Order: sequence, then C-alpha cells, then structure tokens
Amino acid sequence: MTRYAIYPGTFDPITYGHLDIIKRAAKLFDKVVVAVAQNTGKTPLFTMKERKDMILESVKNIDGVEVDTFSGLIVDYCQQQNATALIRGLRAVSDFEYEFQMALLNRKLNQDVESVFLMPKEKFTYLSSSMIKEIATFGGNVSCFVPDHVKEKLINKFEIKEK
Amino acid sequence: MTRYAIYPGTFDPITYGHLDIIKRAAKLFDKVVVAVAQNTGKTPLFTMKERKDMILESVKNIDGVEVDTFSGLIVDYCQQQNATALIRGLRAVSDFEYEFQMALLNRKLNQDVESVFLMPKEKFTYLSSSMIKEIATFGGNVSCFVPDHVKEKLINKFEIKEK
Amino acid sequence: MTRYAIYPGTFDPITYGHLDIIKRAAKLFDKVVVAVAQNTGKTPLFTMKERKDMILESVKNIDGVEVDTFSGLIVDYCQQQNATALIRGLRAVSDFEYEFQMALLNRKLNQDVESVFLMPKEKFTYLSSSMIKEIATFGGNVSCFVPDHVKEKLINKFEIKEK
Amino acid sequence: MTRYAIYPGTFDPITYGHLDIIKRAAKLFDKVVVAVAQNTGKTPLFTMKERKDMILESVKNIDGVEVDTFSGLIVDYCQQQNATALIRGLRAVSDFEYEFQMALLNRKLNQDVESVFLMPKEKFTYLSSSMIKEIATFGGNVSCFVPDHVKEKLINKFEIKEK
Amino acid sequence: MTRYAIYPGTFDPITYGHLDIIKRAAKLFDKVVVAVAQNTGKTPLFTMKERKDMILESVKNIDGVEVDTFSGLIVDYCQQQNATALIRGLRAVSDFEYEFQMALLNRKLNQDVESVFLMPKEKFTYLSSSMIKEIATFGGNVSCFVPDHVKEKLINKFEIKEK
Amino acid sequence: MTRYAIYPGTFDPITYGHLDIIKRAAKLFDKVVVAVAQNTGKTPLFTMKERKDMILESVKNIDGVEVDTFSGLIVDYCQQQNATALIRGLRAVSDFEYEFQMALLNRKLNQDVESVFLMPKEKFTYLSSSMIKEIATFGGNVSCFVPDHVKEKLINKFEIKEK
Repeated sequence: MTRYAIYPGTFDPITYGHLDIIKRAAKLFDKVVVAVAQNTGKTPLFTMKERKDMILESVKNIDGVEVDTFSGLIVDYCQQQNATALIRGLRAVSDFEYEFQMALLNRKLNQDVESVFLMPKEKFTYLSSSMIKEIATFGGNVSCFVPDHVKEKLINKFEIKEK
Repeated sequence: MTRYAIYPGTFDPITYGHLDIIKRAAKLFDKVVVAVAQNTGKTPLFTMKERKDMILESVKNIDGVEVDTFSGLIVDYCQQQNATALIRGLRAVSDFEYEFQMALLNRKLNQDVESVFLMPKEKFTYLSSSMIKEIATFGGNVSCFVPDHVKEKLINKFEIKEK
Repeated sequence: MTRYAIYPGTFDPITYGHLDIIKRAAKLFDKVVVAVAQNTGKTPLFTMKERKDMILESVKNIDGVEVDTFSGLIVDYCQQQNATALIRGLRAVSDFEYEFQMALLNRKLNQDVESVFLMPKEKFTYLSSSMIKEIATFGGNVSCFVPDHVKEKLINKFEIKEK
Repeated sequence: MTRYAIYPGTFDPITYGHLDIIKRAAKLFDKVVVAVAQNTGKTPLFTMKERKDMILESVKNIDGVEVDTFSGLIVDYCQQQNATALIRGLRAVSDFEYEFQMALLNRKLNQDVESVFLMPKEKFTYLSSSMIKEIATFGGNVSCFVPDHVKEKLINKFEIKEK
Repeated sequence: MTRYAIYPGTFDPITYGHLDIIKRAAKLFDKVVVAVAQNTGKTPLFTMKERKDMILESVKNIDGVEVDTFSGLIVDYCQQQNATALIRGLRAVSDFEYEFQMALLNRKLNQDVESVFLMPKEKFTYLSSSMIKEIATFGGNVSCFVPDHVKEKLINKFEIKEK
Repeated sequence: MTRYAIYPGTFDPITYGHLDIIKRAAKLFDKVVVAVAQNTGKTPLFTMKERKDMILESVKNIDGVEVDTFSGLIVDYCQQQNATALIRGLRAVSDFEYEFQMALLNRKLNQDVESVFLMPKEKFTYLSSSMIKEIATFGGNVSCFVPDHVKEKLINKFEIKEK
C-alpha cells in the first residue's frame, strides 16, 4: 500500500523550518506533496510561480517529494490526491491551539484525512516566513533561516520594491 | 430578584457554538439578552438586521432569550440594562487569555458587572464564525456548524458576492 | 425558581481568593453551598471540622452562603442537592486546562450540572492554599492571603507540629 | 519498505482515548506496536499481565497491531525494534508542552526515531487513566470511557481492594 | 562597568504598565533608554513627536531614564548604543510565546544583546495601548490606565478625529 | 553601586541549562550568587555538599559567581544578602505560569526584590535535572546535558544505589 502525505502552506518564502519538516515527513511516507495555497486572504510577497520554484530548488535532493498548488479546502485537495495524511509542523503552544482547531475542523469536513503533527529542530521553532521578510526589509542577514537561492530572491524583491 | 445576563458578540453569523452557550445561560439566569455589537472595527459579512434576524430565528424556541444591539462599551450597555452578568464562552487557551484580560478590564470599568464563563460542548470548541465563512467561500458544507436558515443565508451571500 | 450553586474544594485552609469567588457567586445565585471534599487523596493539614469552622467564620457576613461536606463524585452531590451550577475559580492558563477537562468529564457524568467559571480579583490570581502553607512553615507573614482567624490557626498548627 | 511505529504508555488501564489513537496510527503505518512500560516510578493499579491482556482484548479486531512490554529508555526500545516512529496522542496544551520536551530529549538521545503526534476525537480529549480510576473508586459509571471488559476489571479491582 | 538597557516599543501611547516596567528596569541598570519604534507596519494614532513627548513627561522624575527613537532592527540599535540588555515586559502566556520567539530570533541576529524579562504589577497585566485607545474612542474613563497628561492627549485626539 | 543577583534552585544536579543562565546573569550583574535550597520537600539524589561541590567545579571559570546555600523563604535570603534581583530561567509556557505566580507571591512578601527572567539557549529548553536523572537510571548517555564531572557523579550514584 502506498501512502501519500500532503504538506500545505503559503511558503512565502520557504524556510529551513519548512525544509526540516519536509525531510522528516519524507522518511515516514512514500510520497510527500508540498502543496502551495493559492488563496490565502493576504497578498503574498512572492508570486505563486516564484514560491513554487523556490520550493522545487530547495527539495531537489530529497527523495519522494513533489510540489503542487491547490485552491479551495485543503481536505478536498487531499481527497482528490488520495492522501492519507495532512502534515503540520508544531512549533509552539500558540501554533498548537490553532492547529488543533484546524485539524478538528478538517476531520469534521473529511474524516479520511488524518492530521499528523511533526516537530522541527528546536533551533527552527522561532522561524516564520513573516519574521524573515521583516528582517530582510531592514537589511538583516537571513542566511541562518533560508537557503541561499531564497536569500537572493528576498534581496532582489526588496531592492525592486524600494525603487 | 430577577437576574439578567448579557451575551455580547458580533454573531456574523450565529453558529451552533453560540446557540449552545445561549441555552446553557438561559438555564442559569432569568433572562438572557443576546447583544449584537454595532461597532467592531472590521466590516461584517452580514448587515446588523440580517445578523439580528438570524439570531431571532435561531432562539425562537428557547425561553427567556431576547435579542438586542449595542454600541460603545459593553459594560455601559450592561449597566443600562441592569444586567448582573456578562456571559462569555470559553473554547481554548488562547480564548481564555484574551477573555481574562477583557474581563479584568471590564471589571475595572464597572465592578458591578460579573463576567461569567461557560463551556460549550466539546464538539463546538473549534467553531468560529470566521472559519465557517471561509468554508462557505470554498463551497464546503457547513450543515454541522450552523442552523439550516443560516446556511442558506451564507450560500446566498457568497453567490451574490461572486456575481 | 430558586437556583443553587455548589462551590467545591478542599479549603485547606480557605484563602482570600476563595472568599472572593464565594462573594461573586453569592450575587449570581440564590444560594451558594461551599462544599468541603472529604476524600482528596492527600492528607490535609487541617481536619474536616477545622476547615469547615474556618469557612463558617469567614462567610458569616455573606448572605445566602452555606457550608457542607461531601464525599464521592461532585456531580452526584450536586444532583442530590438539586444544584444548578458548579462554581469554579479560574486563575491561570494551567488552571483553565485542568478545569476544562474536569468540567467536560463532569458534564459526561451528569449533564444537568453546569460548570460556571468566575475570575477572582487579579491580586488573588497567584494564591493557593499550598503556597500559603509553605510560607507559614517558613514563618512568612500570611496576613495578605488569609483572614486573621485562619492566620492564627496556621501559626498554632505549625507550632504544634514543631514540638 | 515496511514502517513500524511504537505507541508507548502505562495503559493502567487502556481507555477509548488510547484505542482511538491506535486506530489512527494503524492506518498510517504497516505495523503498530503498543508498548507497555514496566518501570514508571508509580505503582500501577493493574499488573503488567492484566494491562497487556486488556490491550490484547481491546485491539483484537484492528489489523496490524501488536502488544509488547519494554523497560529502560523508549528510544532504545524503538531502535531495537527498528521502529520509524514514536506515536504520541495530543489532547491539550499541557500535554503538548510535556510531549514537546520529551520529543526533543528523545531526538537528542536517538535522532533516527521520529516523534509523530496524532489527535484523538475531541470527545476523548479529557480522558485519562487516572481520572477513570478515580471515577471507578467512587462508584461512577465508566462505560463511556473504557471497553466493557476493562470496566469489569476496574469494578473487580476496587471490590477486592475494599475487602 | 556601566550597563545600559533598551526598552523598545511603539508607546502609542505610553501606559501605567509601561511606566511600571521602566521603573523596575531603572533599578537594575545604570541607564535605561526607552526606544520608540519608527517603523511598525501599522499607522500609529500619535505622531513620533507626540509619543516621545508623552514619554518624556511621564519619566521626568525617574532617574537614569532617557528617550530615543529607532528604525530598523532593534538588535542593530542595541549594538550601536552598546546596550547590554533588551528589556521586555511579560504579562500573559500569549505574550510569553511571542516574546520567546522574538528573543531567540534577536539572539540569533546578535548574541551580545541579552533579552531580560520583567513582570509588571498584576493590576497592569491586562493593559495594552490598543485597549486603552478603544476605551477612549467610546468615551470610557482611562484615568486608571494612563497618566493625566496622556489622558488629555487621548481626549483631544478623538475630539479632533470626530470633527 | 554594586548589584547582586541570586539564582536559587535545587541543582540536583546542575545542568548545562543552569550554567547557560548563570553565564547570562553574570554579564548583567556585578555578582551572581547561586543559592542551593536546603528544604525542598522531596529528598534530593545528591547531598547538599555534593550539589554545592558540583556547582563550584562547574562555575570556577566564570567571573563574579559565588555559591551559597539557603533555607526558609527565598525573599528573606535575598534581603539578607542585599540582592537586587532574583534570577529565573524561563523554558516553556508551563514554567512561565508557575514562575509568574511565584514572582507575584515573592513581590508581595518583599517588594524590593525584583524577579528577572532570562532565556536559556533553545537547545536547553527541554533540560531538567529530573529528566537527566531518569536517563542516567536507565543507563542513557547524559554527556550532552551535564559537564563530565557531573556525569561521573551520576554514574557513581546509580552504581552505588544498585548494589
């Protein structure tokens, strides 16, 4: 039996924290699909294509990982992909409560999709895409938080915006 | 001595979680006033009249429940109504902290109004009006979360918006 | 309709935090019964009679408050007393989680008893009977935390123990 | 590739909450070993044989589940079993913090074992073996919390203890 | 050796809660610089000059306190000022998690700046500049929360806005 | 003005987490006294002399650190030492709540002693003396968690106990 897992998110941009979770999930499942959300309410810094390209570049050496996009409810996408599991990273208590509520809601909407929670390395517990963007805006060094090719994209983006 | 309780909120729209709290409060007090907030910072999906009508329809079979609107500080409204208690539903730890701070603040502003916390059924702990609206936007089924007449209003609202 | 509320606890000994909750409950219900638990697993410092007497002395000027003892499940005692509500004080997040679980469990055992949560004054949020006993053991001053007659009982108890 | 998961615990006794997690894990992994801890500091109510027998009876209709015992560090047992994952149920925020710390510690001791967190049905979030034992001590009905054969064992145990 | 501490924030406006932390920090360090953030994403109610003037007026009787403004990353500002410590007030669990993540991030960006957490008086734990502005908008009395000169500024601001 | 800080604890035994906090405190204050508690309710694994010796050996290369013992209330000891600050390490939300309550209580008992919270390196957030003792009991490797001389003492202690 082949088991697929979906790891959904906005990935604006992908961080070392996301990559850590992806690697862990890849050891537990036969295939992991990193699913980039198209409709998130807020306007992302990077376009869908940019976000997807950065993920593809970052995961190219991890076996069993694919990248896709989705819109609508994540449980509908999981069902359509015949996914067994919905992967979520847990970093902190506030994460936990929100994730718990989302998981219960998703289970109500589709009880065949199991939410599976993984824990990143402790040094990534404070990482978030929005914090990284804020640091980059102020010219801070983000080398510890994202791969080099993402760092360059961030620098370019903020240079372009400032012009 | 007659004891009034106020249950304030935006109710955009009312959910089974709100109704569960209203029924519990109705057993504890002589009268419960569901008080719809007029000024909330964010623009509601439903007009004040729509929100009030949906509540009225939902509570019509619960004894001792009235529906009203208020603007300004909730403690001022409570005093003006001679209310003994301010009802709040507690769902999760994050709720609790915010509610705790609001209750301490309200007590400072008017110490005659007592904040009373009730707990909904555990299957409603993950319910929120905003999550329901998000599910409805994506065409998800909200039958488990809101009464049928509210579900219809949600469907109509999103159809109209899409045109 | 007369509404009774039960406020259960070990009260070993009663503190200003407990008294604050009792006063708030007395305004919300027609009668509040302070119910002292007989079986709590751990050996209390004060005998049941001492604990009951200290409560009686402390609440003698609050209208509508009675003191009783119970053994077995609190929900069975509530039902036997025809109580509408089970009063609980909420001080902190850790309280909240435990109280939440107990309330869900109690509701499962008897759904006619409603758990009602009240919030003490913020200056009592850090009070607990066990902390007060620890301070008294070390000869610290507990005047801010318990009534004078309880303070005397604490001093006597620790003198007797040391002999 | 075959993937084993270990679900460790004291199971004193097994509850519907444990069973819910076992069923979810069984869908995600090729084999799930329920591992009963021999050394836990506190004296269990049931003997190791009784606890193991109750689990065996409870899981007999779930495919891919085995029951075993272990002593020493759980990560050493996982390695010896070639297990990929260590299953933990998450019920509440207080759970989460403890589990988070244990998972980080276990990862430090053996980074090949991945802690995987699953969420039980919301109606089992307040269940714990110790609460069930307390209810049974007081003669409360535990039918909603444990299978019938466990309920009988609990009744027998407390009758024997009282004599 | 002289030890400087930075207490950063938006201070829109300064409250008794902020002042309580400033007084505590002033006892621990040789100099405390209250650093008003220029770039915060959201538009403040008061201009930078107004915010700075209100702080200056509020701290004029506390020895060893200066007021400054900063833009960019707070750790860069701390380094430029040769500050030993970054002062943060902790009020509640939700604060704590956010502050914890920010402190770990700041330490990553500059490990010479130590985040130091202080606790305000318990009666200030529910205070926030945004709650005070909301109360003032509705004509509530903010005398318990801010100094008189700040209260006047709030009243003037909302009068001007309403015209 | 010379500023002393007290860092109290049981230190049974001292860990890398404690040492991390001691180093941070030593940079903020003129002198840091590591104060070993004599009366803690539970029986420690190591004698007071052993615990004190392990701390002395561990801090011998950190300037401005002294080791002492105390009994009774920590605030009384702080006053007697003319200490300005009481140092506490914050690791997790559950820590925070307990520490918050202790700090408010201590402030009530003596308002001249300021509780100052520091954050250890994130890799030490899951460390506790009791977890380390449990790992050592089971023969696990504690090299990542305590200095070598403490590790040896732990091994000796458990060998002696097993005989």
